Amino acid sequence: MSVLAKLWSLTAVEALNFIKEDLLTVEDYADALLSRVESRDSVVRAWQYLDPVHIMSQARALDRVPRDQRGQLHGVAIGIKDIMDTRDIPTEYGSSLYQGHRPNTDAAVVEILRRAGALIFGKTTTTEFTMLNSGPDTTNPHDPNRTPGGSSAGSAAAVADFQVPLSLGTQTGGSVIRPASYTGTYAMKPTFNVISGGGIKTACLEFDTIGYFARSLEDLQLITDVLSLAAKETIKETIKEVALKDAKVGFVRSPFWHCARPGTIAAMDKAAEILRDQGVTVEHVEFPDGFNNADTLDKMFEAVWVTDGRTALYKDYLMDVTETKLDPDVREFVGNASKIPHEKVRKAFDYYAALRPVFDELAMKYSALITPSAADEAPLGLDDMGSPIFNSLWTAAHMPVIHLPAFVGPNSMPVGLSLVARRYDDQHLLSIAKILSGPLMSKGGWQDKLEKTQ
Amino acid sequence: MSVLAKLWSLTAVEALNFIKEDLLTVEDYADALLSRVESRDSVVRAWQYLDPVHIMSQARALDRVPRDQRGQLHGVAIGIKDIMDTRDIPTEYGSSLYQGHRPNTDAAVVEILRRAGALIFGKTTTTEFTMLNSGPDTTNPHDPNRTPGGSSAGSAAAVADFQVPLSLGTQTGGSVIRPASYTGTYAMKPTFNVISGGGIKTACLEFDTIGYFARSLEDLQLITDVLSLAAKETIKETIKEVALKDAKVGFVRSPFWHCARPGTIAAMDKAAEILRDQGVTVEHVEFPDGFNNADTLDKMFEAVWVTDGRTALYKDYLMDVTETKLDPDVREFVGNASKIPHEKVRKAFDYYAALRPVFDELAMKYSALITPSAADEAPLGLDDMGSPIFNSLWTAAHMPVIHLPAFVGPNSMPVGLSLVARRYDDQHLLSIAKILSGPLMSKGGWQDKLEKTQ
Repeated sequence: MSVLAKLWSLTAVEALNFIKEDLLTVEDYADALLSRVESRDSVVRAWQYLDPVHIMSQARALDRVPRDQRGQLHGVAIGIKDIMDTRDIPTEYGSSLYQGHRPNTDAAVVEILRRAGALIFGKTTTTEFTMLNSGPDTTNPHDPNRTPGGSSAGSAAAVADFQVPLSLGTQTGGSVIRPASYTGTYAMKPTFNVISGGGIKTACLEFDTIGYFARSLEDLQLITDVLSLAAKETIKETIKEVALKDAKVGFVRSPFWHCARPGTIAAMDKAAEILRDQGVTVEHVEFPDGFNNADTLDKMFEAVWVTDGRTALYKDYLMDVTETKLDPDVREFVGNASKIPHEKVRKAFDYYAALRPVFDELAMKYSALITPSAADEAPLGLDDMGSPIFNSLWTAAHMPVIHLPAFVGPNSMPVGLSLVARRYDDQHLLSIAKILSGPLMSKGGWQDKLEKTQ
Repeated sequence: MSVLAKLWSLTAVEALNFIKEDLLTVEDYADALLSRVESRDSVVRAWQYLDPVHIMSQARALDRVPRDQRGQLHGVAIGIKDIMDTRDIPTEYGSSLYQGHRPNTDAAVVEILRRAGALIFGKTTTTEFTMLNSGPDTTNPHDPNRTPGGSSAGSAAAVADFQVPLSLGTQTGGSVIRPASYTGTYAMKPTFNVISGGGIKTACLEFDTIGYFARSLEDLQLITDVLSLAAKETIKETIKEVALKDAKVGFVRSPFWHCARPGTIAAMDKAAEILRDQGVTVEHVEFPDGFNNADTLDKMFEAVWVTDGRTALYKDYLMDVTETKLDPDVREFVGNASKIPHEKVRKAFDYYAALRPVFDELAMKYSALITPSAADEAPLGLDDMGSPIFNSLWTAAHMPVIHLPAFVGPNSMPVGLSLVARRYDDQHLLSIAKILSGPLMSKGGWQDKLEKTQ
């Protein structure tokens, strides 16, 4: 089958170029994506809301936009995690409390994408308020008996399954990078708050970070430039372009290494071997003193999460007057959160605040840090969406993370690794990811077979 | 004139009790407040939006609520700063870009108040996105030739002028405490993020804090208990009830003392004298080493504010396609923000993060800290809303602040002082404020004459 016969398999940059060159209309592109959704949705179930009629009408409207008024993302289809407000289609925050909820304003990030010409395709599944670790019946496109990971379940699955080239997620612990690992997608969680969270349901003000899924690094670059403003040309200062042989990578097993299982252990070993073979300097790096106790890191994270989470969800707790709409776990979370003593809360906020410059300094010593994206391949079953244990620290550290889907686990499922850089070095991280991904992707062993299905 | 003849002069607690005891309907109360607004609005201009018909219909609906379903704030009229979304009346964020904007969901804080039975009275004036230092033509009720302060101009003026007993504001630098000082109202800025900012237009994610204005400490207590959840009974641990003679107060002139003018200098001296006379231990306190350089504190604040502000307003910058709707200062702010080097941005965030535990420790040594709320009385004219120089540090420190309107300046305008406590010690701060306010309010010299006008 030729590429143009399966238009749904295009990356965002590819689709953008075809549209620019008048080889493809947004209407035909949207139609192809919808045919992919139609053939796969009964298995994958990535969408909380998707209206083909509305999509096609938007697509035709984009085709009518005069050439000189078209934006940087003209016609690129993007899935939006259903935790983000959209003015034209429902937003339910994964909660029955918000069934049929229709805010009449776009979240800031959606507004920016729409203005850049993106085709807002639909809303992808999430767990309730992103807080829980189960809920949607979305499957892993590579094995319907496995979870795609959460909480950005639908965004990861839709991109992995070629239903859209790009999607938005949010990460408070590991809600972007872990599902990316489970589904074999590229993903990026930029530095904290370089993209506005306006119009996105907050779970934890201190940690919530917007991220995105794609099927290429070029697509991550594209959306980063549109969203975060800190486009390449404006921040030359922090971009260090290096040749492979001049690169120096710090492998960080982290104090959570005891949680790593065969897929991840093998991926870390293989990555080091591949990079060494390319002349990259590879060093093993420990977490700095004072920040290397797994239990402390974990408990401090929880104290911040619970404290901020209660603030964020107290309104919803009150709105659930019958006490039947919110998941009992969410109700208990909000109801009991005040029991954490203030002494502990203050310590926890200050602990992560003090950690940030220390981890920045660590990252500075290397072209990038490499660390696990998940404990292993995606677990079997849909009830347990896996553990964010390898992600939470980097979210709390506010550092940018890029996920590379390079490796394969013992059950032929994808396993990836995280590249991490200092806060605000997002563009540098994209550059180094492009350089390191060459050998890692070609020799890592992951082969995506989904493109061959229809 | 009897109290009941001027119902508009009641505090929230007083009105609440009359309504509870069936001595007053919400309808009659609302009618009295509207008559006050009518007689004063041409001078004070506190309201961005106020619809008497809608107010009266809400008031009558509240009167119909069965007694056993009435909330903690049943019938209490509250003004909402027009930076907060309201589902039934417009929200314009002080910007012509949002003229007639009508979000269909309440901000979290508005939703909580409404559920507690509050009468959402109207929207109070603010500067554009709270970012500017001029804009609304709201006047100071005590002298129409003077500013009420900003950015929560209307909320301060409406409460000071007896048009509502309570109002909400937000503070990023000094947007609650300073207008409280200029208008002679009580005000509180609780610990950062104990109240959700959901549905409030963000200016600076790291500093934005919700606050409120009232005409008594009991009213500050009332709304704190409803909003912040951390009601007295749940956090006994941090409330240290002390007698006046056992109180120990730290007077903090701060590195910005050179900005203090006669009204504030006299207020600080008089407060120390009054408290000493009552047996309170009074000590002078310096800012701790490393955090005592005015220029550094100021520049670091600006770097965080500009960085977060750009993230928050980038969407609006793009929406202003004709480049005519946003104030030129806002456009320049967003357009130039990326020019701050990342190195400086990282340092600034970490500087304030490191400051927080140090200032908590300082506050711990005292029953409360006392520090200026403004440089002086409200300045003459409406174009300059005054300087937040004495407030920004405490906002950035995330510490709770209560403003006491106890003193009077050389031009017979009110001057107040700030009481400050450690993060999360909000209830303790309310307790100590009640104790210290006795002698400060009775001997400070401020006499509110507005109650006598109609």
